[in-house]
Amino acid sequence: MRLLGIAVVLAVLPGAAADQRQALLQADRDFCQAVVEKGLEGWLFWFAEDGKMFPDGAGIVTGKAAIRERMAPIFARPEYSIRWKALGADISGASDFGYTYGTSVIKSADKDGKPVTRYGKYVTVWKKQADGTWRVVADMGNTAPPPK
Amino acid sequence: MRLLGIAVVLAVLPGAAADQRQALLQADRDFCQAVVEKGLEGWLFWFAEDGKMFPDGAGIVTGKAAIRERMAPIFARPEYSIRWKALGADISGASDFGYTYGTSVIKSADKDGKPVTRYGKYVTVWKKQADGTWRVVADMGNTAPPPK
Repeated sequence: MRLLGIAVVLAVLPGAAADQRQALLQADRDFCQAVVEKGLEGWLFWFAEDGKMFPDGAGIVTGKAAIRERMAPIFARPEYSIRWKALGADISGASDFGYTYGTSVIKSADKDGKPVTRYGKYVTVWKKQADGTWRVVADMGNTAPPPK
Repeated sequence: MRLLGIAVVLAVLPGAAADQRQALLQADRDFCQAVVEKGLEGWLFWFAEDGKMFPDGAGIVTGKAAIRERMAPIFARPEYSIRWKALGADISGASDFGYTYGTSVIKSADKDGKPVTRYGKYVTVWKKQADGTWRVVADMGNTAPPPK
């Protein structure tokens, strides 16, 4: 009980909150790295089972099976890649819910094989799962100006 | 101490969580109603002081002063209106952080006075403030197909 009491006190210290925000930002970076290494499978890994995607120009996509169906042809595009960089995060008091935001770069090739680059930004909403891991419950992006 | 214990138990009951999610959805509806009634001032009212907007096609806008600067000319457009309808929400265990999502309709007039309607969807991230009110910490929208 004494150990439990100490754990609760630590969890509400400002330093601990900053650590938790850093942990969420690391999850965002790990998500991106998984996509770099594994493409579609890396993308799917980081979504909660009932996670939602809000793709620009399309309707809401709910659940891993529907996200796979949506993203498989996109990841199969010639020279397709998506990379992003988190700029910040905010989390709930108990560090069980939060969001990250940042900028993204999507590259692919047009029908003539010419490289196409699109710049965007994103908001990703995360929920800590029963096993303590962060997973994406909502992911939305839109267009942004090219970086200066 | 016994009362505190009971309060903690109640806070984790599924029924209470559903009530809290309904309260967040109501905040989303109140936000829209404020914009119907008060335009720009209604928009600003619901943002946290350091809230962020992620407008489609533009950079990230941080804080109420910058949001006012961004949105004032938009709300001043001829026949401009923005309406939205929440479709769902999810919240943290302690009901201090959450998000809503839904569809939006933006109307305005082009330079010849002809009505223009744009359909979109949104993700809004909310954080409960020290006074117990929900305020927007992040708001992003993108385009969506017209409703069927």
